[in-house]
Amino acid sequence: MTAHGSKMRAYQLDKLGGLEGLVLAERDIPSPGTGGVLVRVRASSLNFRDLIILSGGYPAPVPSGRVPLSDGAGEVVAVGAGVTRFKPGDRVINAFFPNWFGGAFNAMPEQYVSDHDGWLTEYKVVSAEALAAMPKHLTFEEAATLPCAAVTAWSALSGVRTGDTVLTQGTGGVSLFAVQLAKAFGARVIATTSTPEKAQRLRDLGADEVVDYRATPDWGDRVRELTGGRGVDRVVEVGGPDTLTQSVKTIAYGGQISLVGVLAGAEGGIDFMTMFMSLATFKPIVVGSRRDLEDLGRTLEQHEVRPVIDSVFSFDDAKAGWSHFADRQLFGKVVIRH
Amino acid sequence: MTAHGSKMRAYQLDKLGGLEGLVLAERDIPSPGTGGVLVRVRASSLNFRDLIILSGGYPAPVPSGRVPLSDGAGEVVAVGAGVTRFKPGDRVINAFFPNWFGGAFNAMPEQYVSDHDGWLTEYKVVSAEALAAMPKHLTFEEAATLPCAAVTAWSALSGVRTGDTVLTQGTGGVSLFAVQLAKAFGARVIATTSTPEKAQRLRDLGADEVVDYRATPDWGDRVRELTGGRGVDRVVEVGGPDTLTQSVKTIAYGGQISLVGVLAGAEGGIDFMTMFMSLATFKPIVVGSRRDLEDLGRTLEQHEVRPVIDSVFSFDDAKAGWSHFADRQLFGKVVIRH
Amino acid sequence: MTAHGSKMRAYQLDKLGGLEGLVLAERDIPSPGTGGVLVRVRASSLNFRDLIILSGGYPAPVPSGRVPLSDGAGEVVAVGAGVTRFKPGDRVINAFFPNWFGGAFNAMPEQYVSDHDGWLTEYKVVSAEALAAMPKHLTFEEAATLPCAAVTAWSALSGVRTGDTVLTQGTGGVSLFAVQLAKAFGARVIATTSTPEKAQRLRDLGADEVVDYRATPDWGDRVRELTGGRGVDRVVEVGGPDTLTQSVKTIAYGGQISLVGVLAGAEGGIDFMTMFMSLATFKPIVVGSRRDLEDLGRTLEQHEVRPVIDSVFSFDDAKAGWSHFADRQLFGKVVIRH
Amino acid sequence: MTAHGSKMRAYQLDKLGGLEGLVLAERDIPSPGTGGVLVRVRASSLNFRDLIILSGGYPAPVPSGRVPLSDGAGEVVAVGAGVTRFKPGDRVINAFFPNWFGGAFNAMPEQYVSDHDGWLTEYKVVSAEALAAMPKHLTFEEAATLPCAAVTAWSALSGVRTGDTVLTQGTGGVSLFAVQLAKAFGARVIATTSTPEKAQRLRDLGADEVVDYRATPDWGDRVRELTGGRGVDRVVEVGGPDTLTQSVKTIAYGGQISLVGVLAGAEGGIDFMTMFMSLATFKPIVVGSRRDLEDLGRTLEQHEVRPVIDSVFSFDDAKAGWSHFADRQLFGKVVIRH
Repeated sequence: MTAHGSKMRAYQLDKLGGLEGLVLAERDIPSPGTGGVLVRVRASSLNFRDLIILSGGYPAPVPSGRVPLSDGAGEVVAVGAGVTRFKPGDRVINAFFPNWFGGAFNAMPEQYVSDHDGWLTEYKVVSAEALAAMPKHLTFEEAATLPCAAVTAWSALSGVRTGDTVLTQGTGGVSLFAVQLAKAFGARVIATTSTPEKAQRLRDLGADEVVDYRATPDWGDRVRELTGGRGVDRVVEVGGPDTLTQSVKTIAYGGQISLVGVLAGAEGGIDFMTMFMSLATFKPIVVGSRRDLEDLGRTLEQHEVRPVIDSVFSFDDAKAGWSHFADRQLFGKVVIRH
Repeated sequence: MTAHGSKMRAYQLDKLGGLEGLVLAERDIPSPGTGGVLVRVRASSLNFRDLIILSGGYPAPVPSGRVPLSDGAGEVVAVGAGVTRFKPGDRVINAFFPNWFGGAFNAMPEQYVSDHDGWLTEYKVVSAEALAAMPKHLTFEEAATLPCAAVTAWSALSGVRTGDTVLTQGTGGVSLFAVQLAKAFGARVIATTSTPEKAQRLRDLGADEVVDYRATPDWGDRVRELTGGRGVDRVVEVGGPDTLTQSVKTIAYGGQISLVGVLAGAEGGIDFMTMFMSLATFKPIVVGSRRDLEDLGRTLEQHEVRPVIDSVFSFDDAKAGWSHFADRQLFGKVVIRH
Repeated sequence: MTAHGSKMRAYQLDKLGGLEGLVLAERDIPSPGTGGVLVRVRASSLNFRDLIILSGGYPAPVPSGRVPLSDGAGEVVAVGAGVTRFKPGDRVINAFFPNWFGGAFNAMPEQYVSDHDGWLTEYKVVSAEALAAMPKHLTFEEAATLPCAAVTAWSALSGVRTGDTVLTQGTGGVSLFAVQLAKAFGARVIATTSTPEKAQRLRDLGADEVVDYRATPDWGDRVRELTGGRGVDRVVEVGGPDTLTQSVKTIAYGGQISLVGVLAGAEGGIDFMTMFMSLATFKPIVVGSRRDLEDLGRTLEQHEVRPVIDSVFSFDDAKAGWSHFADRQLFGKVVIRH
Repeated sequence: MTAHGSKMRAYQLDKLGGLEGLVLAERDIPSPGTGGVLVRVRASSLNFRDLIILSGGYPAPVPSGRVPLSDGAGEVVAVGAGVTRFKPGDRVINAFFPNWFGGAFNAMPEQYVSDHDGWLTEYKVVSAEALAAMPKHLTFEEAATLPCAAVTAWSALSGVRTGDTVLTQGTGGVSLFAVQLAKAFGARVIATTSTPEKAQRLRDLGADEVVDYRATPDWGDRVRELTGGRGVDRVVEVGGPDTLTQSVKTIAYGGQISLVGVLAGAEGGIDFMTMFMSLATFKPIVVGSRRDLEDLGRTLEQHEVRPVIDSVFSFDDAKAGWSHFADRQLFGKVVIRH
């Protein structure tokens, strides 16, 4: 990286609906104003949200020309006036929300892509407050997986305590972080998946039990059985209405189903009496604050947890990365190296 | 009525399905064993659960001959060996669950009527640990309304803080306690109801705003409007799937919908995406523990809150009380004086 | 107030040790950079911390020339690039800490006066994130009392619940907010003071009981008596080691003594066994975050609480304000009108 | 041992002041009344409290003839009327407090030895509610160590989260449980001790760092250094005023010092400003409730944690056990096998 004032490359969403709308463009490298930080982005990662945005189905409007992706990691190259949090050379990641710093969720914060340019760019200026220090033991590629998926898993597990049992589903980014983090929380983990190979990899990551949801379509009953009938204390529900029916069968009285997403299709609902009689809490998860990211980072360092990366694509091949990610045959995160 | 060893009267459910199965019978007055307390029951109260039990629709089996009702208040007339919590002459109420004493809900405790004889009786022996002292400022009739409805409202409001806004629905027992308690919590209260008369009585109880759900079928939008668009922090949802659709419209990001019951019909469900996009928590309420009852009692005393009683029936007229209660045209609790 | 680029006046601490070091100076009106806001300060308020700073006894170094005071209220006159939180004309107050936005206290944030110029100035530029909207019902003079004293009282009461009893001490800024806020929390308040006049004013503010600590040197016993022997659930301890001895006598098992300050002298300690046998929690209070200020503001609006102002001094008479404040014969806050 | 109605042996404290007051006596085996359980006690354990009781220094009066010890494990041999929690053959331990079942500490519960006979007996009748199921993987000797020491460690760690750092002190019962449990919570552990041998055993138990407090009298500074200057999030303080001075040096802003006891002498205090400027919470720990014991047991089972036993003495040699325990050269718990 070199002179300010020179040019950089960034992808932008010229139109929504498909990958053909994602265009590589040249822009001026921006300069940091008061309180701002110029980051040489070294890696970014893809999340399900990015597919929805690309498809045009995101609930918030996405203006034409926006740089996509919510997650980035990089190196500070310059700081503006008044910045004390970071200095050139620091390795940083961004918080998913640029202005939710801490405290309970109580309003919709601003978001990358819908409100601001995202991270699929070579350089980027953001407020110093929108960044966190990278966990020391991670590479840029690994760190770029944290802002959305890992923080979501962290929040989905909030309040889990040693002695608890946690259910995770599949091998997407959030679910694998949930396995790793639940172990760091001192909990027992039951994971679902669909092949013996993935089952083995889940066990290697720390899952205490793995249930094959293809071989056992009524996997909810099987999971409950594995808890001696008491049920699990926490479900990290990533599937949506389709898997929720099984998840409710697994939950212990007083447990919590953290609703993370709708990977398995958003159509459908849940029967009121089923929900009520579960006597469990249903809580949608909204990623998390910068404080959550920082707390997470401290845990990753302490437990030397390394994110699971499915694959890494070069900045030039970013579109291939999107295609691969869209196929949903993943074990971990898809990363783009800038 | 006096001497131990003599007879007492109690109602019992000889068969389920209708009031004809509720029979007044003579029994021996029991004696308290170790740790037990003999209570001269002076009042009991009716809850929606009692209608479901009578109808035969309760999810747990109810053996023939069981004494109904979960809520009672009375006077201690004798204590067994080892009892230090109470002495003859003490005025007591029962905890809804005889063996959930405190701590978070994590298992289904035993229950009156399904597991043990209930409180529609002149005398009753229970463990000293299953009782709490009556709030000092209340009559037996008033105190008999607390074990189920007031504790449910208390739990449904758990975590509400001054500055919050609470939505209550209608004029049943739980909802009126929710109005009174939310004011004691220092919150703002928006209540729904169906007539100007009830609206006025809700205001007299402390409701800051009242919305007529008949005049305003889309009352969810109206409630949100009354919060300046931010939404309410807590809904005490008593209706079930029918009202939940409106309730979800009223809830603030990060708020909680406490699911208390299904007064408006149990059939139906909630759309997954509606639930998810609310970014609110959905939490079924399971009455509460003895500690909750004690904390509630302390609050009632401090704020000199008196339960709202719809009507009082004599022990001999208990069946008339059930009939009146079943008509659901209530403003407060229906009590039976023993 | 008029053209940017023109001059403004600000007090600055040229040397510490006494009021003679506080000097009125002319400065350029600053311009807001990216993310910044220019505020026309309309009022500021004094806190005990300001006396310590002036005396030279503050634990953090205070460079020569710093503008004093941590609390200000004013009007936005210009915003820098990228600012969406506020617009010209908005009425704002500052958070005590410019970069603790929310979440539990876990590191020492930056502070006005020691790290940055403070608020005893006609104009000031700060990050938009360092400000909160003024509660709508307050004047600038009233709002300027909130950042330190009211937020400290708010944090000192954190976790108090309806049914609890709170002990406050004296009639300083934090203590009067504690009386008002504890009532908003639905708690019972016992206050101490030294004259019948102040006692009456405390009762007018909402105190349920007032104990004269001069007439009753062993006021700890008296306070416990007023709770029926159980003790208070929360003490807002502002005195330091001298009053703590009495405070410990008043606290209930499981209660909390919030340590707010050392108004009554910092020398001395607390006996270990006394502390241990109290079975209460001792928690130093560190003002609070911007989120705390916002939550507080919502409560003040809802309950229409108005801060108690002891006296207002003009900007020209600011030194007289300091002198008056230093005399410690106060009932409420000392404010400077800019 | 067999038939009910026959005789049993129990130790009793005929007078306080020394071991000569501890007398082995014959008593009738009691019968369980309503709600009661007869336990064949198989093991008991000693705690620091027992030394204080024996010395005559316990704050509550101890009537002559009381059976000592608060902790026991055994087998249910008979149950009284109405008992559903346990049946003959069940392996059980007692909760430290026979009538604190759950919920936050807010009143002093009854206690063994001061209020009731304790557990240094062959048989004992208690309420079924005063018992918990033994963790399945433990022996009676191991399980008998849990009621006081392990639950105290559990409560002292309450709220610790993965990513946190915990400081433990020495190798007494509570401290070793704190090491093991803090690891189960996913925390990092720094332990202090006085010899290389004990240091190695602490590392074997899971301590990440061990500091020799003899070699490093200013061990507080060393501990802080080991946290990179941030400090520890939790101290399990077992020493009292003497060690507290060092502990305060180690604590992070916002951390908590759990005050467990006074092993190192109760005389002395803590300077107010030191306590205040730590910006940490000081919380006396009161063992815990039955719910805490049950939650702890679930964790011990899940993590297959086995209590560290210093030594086991036979029932006949119980006094030798007391003597050994009184010498305080321990690594773990002293147990008596009945």
